[in-house]
Amino acid sequence: MRLEHDLLGELEVPESAYWGVHTARAVKNFNISGVSIGHYRSFVRALGYIKEASALANHELGELSTDLFEPIRQACIEVRDGKFDSEFVVDAIQGGAGTSTNMNANEVIANRALEIVGHKKGEYQFIHPLNHVNISQSTNDVYPTAIKVSLIIELNALLAEMKLLRESFAAKASEFASVIKMGRTQLQDAVPMTLGQEFSTYDITMGEDEARIREVIRLLSEINLGGTAIGTQLNTPDGYARSVTKHLSQITEHEFLLAENLIEATQDTGVFVSASSVMKRVAVKLSKIANDLRLLSSGPRAGFGEINLPPQQAGSSIMPGKVNPVIPEVVNQIAFTVIGNDLTVTMASEAGQLELNAFEPIIARSLMMSITYLRRGCATLRTLCVDGITANVEYLRMTVENSIGLVTAISPRIGYENATAVAKEAQATGKSVREVVLQMKLLTSEEFDAILGDVNRLTGRR
Amino acid sequence: MRLEHDLLGELEVPESAYWGVHTARAVKNFNISGVSIGHYRSFVRALGYIKEASALANHELGELSTDLFEPIRQACIEVRDGKFDSEFVVDAIQGGAGTSTNMNANEVIANRALEIVGHKKGEYQFIHPLNHVNISQSTNDVYPTAIKVSLIIELNALLAEMKLLRESFAAKASEFASVIKMGRTQLQDAVPMTLGQEFSTYDITMGEDEARIREVIRLLSEINLGGTAIGTQLNTPDGYARSVTKHLSQITEHEFLLAENLIEATQDTGVFVSASSVMKRVAVKLSKIANDLRLLSSGPRAGFGEINLPPQQAGSSIMPGKVNPVIPEVVNQIAFTVIGNDLTVTMASEAGQLELNAFEPIIARSLMMSITYLRRGCATLRTLCVDGITANVEYLRMTVENSIGLVTAISPRIGYENATAVAKEAQATGKSVREVVLQMKLLTSEEFDAILGDVNRLTGRR
Amino acid sequence: MRLEHDLLGELEVPESAYWGVHTARAVKNFNISGVSIGHYRSFVRALGYIKEASALANHELGELSTDLFEPIRQACIEVRDGKFDSEFVVDAIQGGAGTSTNMNANEVIANRALEIVGHKKGEYQFIHPLNHVNISQSTNDVYPTAIKVSLIIELNALLAEMKLLRESFAAKASEFASVIKMGRTQLQDAVPMTLGQEFSTYDITMGEDEARIREVIRLLSEINLGGTAIGTQLNTPDGYARSVTKHLSQITEHEFLLAENLIEATQDTGVFVSASSVMKRVAVKLSKIANDLRLLSSGPRAGFGEINLPPQQAGSSIMPGKVNPVIPEVVNQIAFTVIGNDLTVTMASEAGQLELNAFEPIIARSLMMSITYLRRGCATLRTLCVDGITANVEYLRMTVENSIGLVTAISPRIGYENATAVAKEAQATGKSVREVVLQMKLLTSEEFDAILGDVNRLTGRR
Amino acid sequence: MRLEHDLLGELEVPESAYWGVHTARAVKNFNISGVSIGHYRSFVRALGYIKEASALANHELGELSTDLFEPIRQACIEVRDGKFDSEFVVDAIQGGAGTSTNMNANEVIANRALEIVGHKKGEYQFIHPLNHVNISQSTNDVYPTAIKVSLIIELNALLAEMKLLRESFAAKASEFASVIKMGRTQLQDAVPMTLGQEFSTYDITMGEDEARIREVIRLLSEINLGGTAIGTQLNTPDGYARSVTKHLSQITEHEFLLAENLIEATQDTGVFVSASSVMKRVAVKLSKIANDLRLLSSGPRAGFGEINLPPQQAGSSIMPGKVNPVIPEVVNQIAFTVIGNDLTVTMASEAGQLELNAFEPIIARSLMMSITYLRRGCATLRTLCVDGITANVEYLRMTVENSIGLVTAISPRIGYENATAVAKEAQATGKSVREVVLQMKLLTSEEFDAILGDVNRLTGRR
Repeated sequence: MRLEHDLLGELEVPESAYWGVHTARAVKNFNISGVSIGHYRSFVRALGYIKEASALANHELGELSTDLFEPIRQACIEVRDGKFDSEFVVDAIQGGAGTSTNMNANEVIANRALEIVGHKKGEYQFIHPLNHVNISQSTNDVYPTAIKVSLIIELNALLAEMKLLRESFAAKASEFASVIKMGRTQLQDAVPMTLGQEFSTYDITMGEDEARIREVIRLLSEINLGGTAIGTQLNTPDGYARSVTKHLSQITEHEFLLAENLIEATQDTGVFVSASSVMKRVAVKLSKIANDLRLLSSGPRAGFGEINLPPQQAGSSIMPGKVNPVIPEVVNQIAFTVIGNDLTVTMASEAGQLELNAFEPIIARSLMMSITYLRRGCATLRTLCVDGITANVEYLRMTVENSIGLVTAISPRIGYENATAVAKEAQATGKSVREVVLQMKLLTSEEFDAILGDVNRLTGRR
Repeated sequence: MRLEHDLLGELEVPESAYWGVHTARAVKNFNISGVSIGHYRSFVRALGYIKEASALANHELGELSTDLFEPIRQACIEVRDGKFDSEFVVDAIQGGAGTSTNMNANEVIANRALEIVGHKKGEYQFIHPLNHVNISQSTNDVYPTAIKVSLIIELNALLAEMKLLRESFAAKASEFASVIKMGRTQLQDAVPMTLGQEFSTYDITMGEDEARIREVIRLLSEINLGGTAIGTQLNTPDGYARSVTKHLSQITEHEFLLAENLIEATQDTGVFVSASSVMKRVAVKLSKIANDLRLLSSGPRAGFGEINLPPQQAGSSIMPGKVNPVIPEVVNQIAFTVIGNDLTVTMASEAGQLELNAFEPIIARSLMMSITYLRRGCATLRTLCVDGITANVEYLRMTVENSIGLVTAISPRIGYENATAVAKEAQATGKSVREVVLQMKLLTSEEFDAILGDVNRLTGRR
Repeated sequence: MRLEHDLLGELEVPESAYWGVHTARAVKNFNISGVSIGHYRSFVRALGYIKEASALANHELGELSTDLFEPIRQACIEVRDGKFDSEFVVDAIQGGAGTSTNMNANEVIANRALEIVGHKKGEYQFIHPLNHVNISQSTNDVYPTAIKVSLIIELNALLAEMKLLRESFAAKASEFASVIKMGRTQLQDAVPMTLGQEFSTYDITMGEDEARIREVIRLLSEINLGGTAIGTQLNTPDGYARSVTKHLSQITEHEFLLAENLIEATQDTGVFVSASSVMKRVAVKLSKIANDLRLLSSGPRAGFGEINLPPQQAGSSIMPGKVNPVIPEVVNQIAFTVIGNDLTVTMASEAGQLELNAFEPIIARSLMMSITYLRRGCATLRTLCVDGITANVEYLRMTVENSIGLVTAISPRIGYENATAVAKEAQATGKSVREVVLQMKLLTSEEFDAILGDVNRLTGRR
Repeated sequence: MRLEHDLLGELEVPESAYWGVHTARAVKNFNISGVSIGHYRSFVRALGYIKEASALANHELGELSTDLFEPIRQACIEVRDGKFDSEFVVDAIQGGAGTSTNMNANEVIANRALEIVGHKKGEYQFIHPLNHVNISQSTNDVYPTAIKVSLIIELNALLAEMKLLRESFAAKASEFASVIKMGRTQLQDAVPMTLGQEFSTYDITMGEDEARIREVIRLLSEINLGGTAIGTQLNTPDGYARSVTKHLSQITEHEFLLAENLIEATQDTGVFVSASSVMKRVAVKLSKIANDLRLLSSGPRAGFGEINLPPQQAGSSIMPGKVNPVIPEVVNQIAFTVIGNDLTVTMASEAGQLELNAFEPIIARSLMMSITYLRRGCATLRTLCVDGITANVEYLRMTVENSIGLVTAISPRIGYENATAVAKEAQATGKSVREVVLQMKLLTSEEFDAILGDVNRLTGRR
């Protein structure tokens, strides 16, 4: 054990630990979720980037001598690359607006830097976590920026999975392009369409959500590094904010912008509300699609029975041979989780007071969970469900031929009221629309077939 | 116009108005929802009860002379009975923790009392809204108690409608007691049951919710009258709190209890969170039932087609003869509204600070809306939907006979793995379970029929 | 009374009514909120626009003869301009995915058109609500488009009020530009800033939300007119969709775009989720600002006491002279309502099934409420609160001079650990930072003053 | 590796694994949260209890021979006691309504039982996971009952922590019983109270929530064991449901009741909505308390400054000596998480369809998280915050003496309007209420002191 001290006095930390006294206090204080920040790879990576960018800016502006800069930068790169994830030990749910996370990073980097130059851990007289690693910084600019960098990494990974899922829907849309079926509104038989059109909508709708994600990535790219405690740039050299933003953009290969008003940027968590809202929107869409897939595959004999989901496991411990839509079901549950997380983010954001939002840790954790689950949900839905869907083509064709909804197509010709009478008669007697129309002498069989014979026109493929 | 004055100076109010300067300020300040508190009959009734109970207690304890007491009491009774609803003009969404509502009540009662004894409105030197009508009271005990009294009135009305709806479900359960159908789990065909059992669950589940409502009525019956500003009973005579609680119980014919700790009772809105949670629970149940009804009536030809909802209107402006489940749909939307209102109540409750929750007005308005909509939803669902539901009995019987799920019943006899093989073969070939079982020589036809012949046992009616 | 008939048979409607049998059924079916669609001016206006645009397109494409077109167009214009708002009598909360709303519009327009050409109401053989007014349309394209048109109208009105509020904050930012105060993080004294900077953040943050609203207006401008029942363009002439979109753009003077995939556009309510999310974001910001204003004005003697809100009404029925922050309080409550409404919209959107979202009516009603309340909240906050705020300048200066937070500014010079020691000593003894620093001989008084003397630099105004 | 097979064919599982083919499929299917069900100790314990109770009932009723019963029971006990937690490997977020969880339990118990009697794992011809371990059971009765048993265990642990926290508040209430301070309503100075009363409310309010938890434990004690697939008791011997309920009560030493209607009990998740609502209520209260503690300790010099929270860590990486309310802050974040989880539970419950709610896994996981976090939050708040709170007694007394709120106490004597005038004058001039009252000759100094001298009466301690 080695002895470190802080505001509250002295405390022993394990000799092997790269973290120090501030982290030790935080570990003791926050025993909530059991999930440490080191669990979030992209977040530690983001911290590494930001600390490196800051070291670069401080060195450039003469605030950090080369002797200090070189080992600190090296340590930042190692943190970024994941060599010390297990040293990020503070609980992800923490008080203090992220201070403990920032302290944890400062201490790990300082101790690793000390090690690089041949000192022992804890010899902060040579390289100090706060005076040197944290120079020109505050938790209040480092921490929200780390969340943003991390979210951008995660959102890009989500986008990649959404694209694959979208392509899977598009492939099914092609496969089922000529499979005719009844469209339904309000769960009631409506008018004909193709099963390909059904799947095509899922492709399109996911594409729109990808566009929303790209917009929010742009919003997340506006950062407040250099604002320090409350955005007044206290304790930063002139030019620091622009320099650190430039360096961060260079090393991440992503263009970050400095917020125009740093005081506003320090306290405002609106961008996290927006990011969470987009996750909610994606969740709502995925849940709707999962609901549709479960409906369309309901049965096998007493349901809609339009499509078959690939079986992935036995469905019941008591009902042999039962196969359930377990993959869409897990997607629904992911969606409910994301929508719940969105509420957590909303409340945390609303609760911010004056110059800082103290509740960013739960915002970060909730967003990370949502994005990760959605990404895994998209991959699961694609590989274990959508890719293997098959259609009951003949049954689908039969539902169209039997449908009363066909009356809609001849309604402009015979008028809404005659068409209503046809529909009522067909429903009451079980006859087809064709039979009733001919019997009521509203159209000749040639006229009827002329209208209903053009499947492409019926299904809007003109 | 007559001239009144307050902290901020003088203000003209219409000569005909029973409300005064404080109300006038509030009307000017709060132009949000366009719905005034007078719109909520039960709430104004509650204010009348409370002001009367307070007058009774003050008179009993010698704080209010008989000359003042008599006309004030008379005015309270008239307010209670709805003669002055149009004089309660403050917007239901208001700042000030209900002060404007209390002021509105005090002014209307004072001016009506003045009128009763032959004075002119505004001659507060004779009967004063604050010194006399509001004596021994504060908004902070009157207002939350008025919400509670009003909620109890509304919840009792809701209970009555829920009971009627429950009875309607029970009647359908009887009517369909021998209609056999396939039960479904995860939207997949499971094992047989009766349609009567389906409807019976709705009866039972509503009954459980009624029990939850009765529990919350008990919680709402604990009040803080006599606590005044922060619960310290400042400016009340000894014995007032018990006396006013006693009088309120007597005139409302409902037993109210004085909270043990009045300071806690003044700031705590937990009971409203609980009441809103129960409304949410009812909404969740109703929405699930509405979803089921929409599913079971989907079709008419390409859906579940098990039951028919009574048609209430033409379903489409373009699809003649289409009939939609419009009544369950409106119930779903009520449920979504109630669940949204529950969030509003939650946030308003969480935002309370120190000795008072300033956000009770939005809590009250949200709860009132939820209870009213649920009550109307229950009545609508019963009269325009459930009462008229019919069953497609023959089709239902056929789905049971064709079902692969029958294999479950013989699984204990032939083993889970054999049963799985039967189910797979039946699904692959389209054969019945009976055919496959006999063909695989797993049971004789007598054995098979012995197991599946007892419909009562199959459906759990042993 | 006159007799009309529909799918369900005959029904009497009042002779004077412009609405007909379909509307009459709907009024009977939906008795939920008591608020009819005619209450939403912008929504009826939107219906007028759309029906007119459709008539123009149908006329252009030869589907509607000039004899029919002229009176129908005239009736649409009158509906748009508000002459028949009281004829839109269906409850805003309705089943049927908006069909009853569309039917109401069709009937009012048909009957007014009949009247214009000299026929009696109900003589639909001349001008028919469905065959003529609704030609080439379905509720499923008309209704969601009407919501979008209406939301765009309302959002533009909200933008105008937000801009005024923002300017009010900006004016206060100027007024208080040189008022120095302590910034606070986590409610603890942090480092100096100006009161002008405090108000400036509110200006900036509202501006960012305005940008989000403009983005969502762009999304709302993508419509599905011409898709009819499920997006397959059934029963529309070639070119209709583009024509009606063009005409709608022209008469509204707002550029609408035809969705690329009309089937997707018919079932997808993602844009409403996005619109509601932006309303939630605005609400979160306004609530945070309201919280800040309440905090900063807390007191008058045992609170923060930094600013004074203009008194708008007496604050208490029991505590004379008390003035409460009633305006920010009502803003908080609006925010809680909007956040609750957002949940309603989310659930309604998630519940959409297959080719249509049946729950658009509650989405529309919730969004309308949110936008309207936010608009009124902004106006109320500006005129009754922000414009009249004053500062306690001398007290604020004193809090800075006494502050321990000043130690941050000298921390880079004396090191984090020395600075911590100074802070502890100052806190323990009640001394000023200056005293302690000099006493500990960490800096000379000249050095101390050099660092802390430059108020502009301290507060980031370099 | 050993080979097992199921509906989908053969699959290799590790020779050492106690789980089998069904679990292996589920692990492959559900890669969402990374947290396996074995992580939830009380949940695995509950599964052990239920499987043991079922074995006891089956043995009692002659369905399970003693040769099978003995090793199965032994295996159940070992599972219950935690020896195989690491074998419960399915992701907590799973499709299939808990089937995979039930399968996992069946397989672990079967393989352990096989091992006990000297067979090899996978030799299911001797002891079969479904035919023997799962006999008379279905996921649809086992799984929800396991959730209930587990929740009861966790809620009892939460109750214990809440009691300790409540006692901590009570101790502070005693300690501060004579510390006089200003009560605040709407963040504005109101009337006097004691700091002891402030803390006493937290004691009382937590006690009320404990009562709500005890009520919900009672509701959770109603179970559906014996209902099997959909509640019709298919494949159970007569008397099974009562027997298994009896045995479960005996071995858990907690009284469980058999639901009266098993079909309803199988599909209804209302009790989970209620349980989650109570967790939300607790969260709302704790968050309000945390907000109060942060407010009362704001400062140290430019805030309320009434109390001091014990410092637990350095508060800032840039502001030396800053100490933040990190413990209340983490409690707020727990509350926001619980409220978000409540929404997830609500949506999952609403989404249930027909005879089963497929979304119970996310309900279980959300409730477990909420209860666990609340328990840890209570412990953290007590030990690291409340126990160490101190009061600034002299400052508090001064705020009362300076207060304008004192005018309320003399208002009944001098009238509301005179009292308002006094308050305005005091506020305008900075004078004390006493000075102004004497100057305005409203009371003599003796009269004034007679009213305000009785601190006990002023603060409601009569």
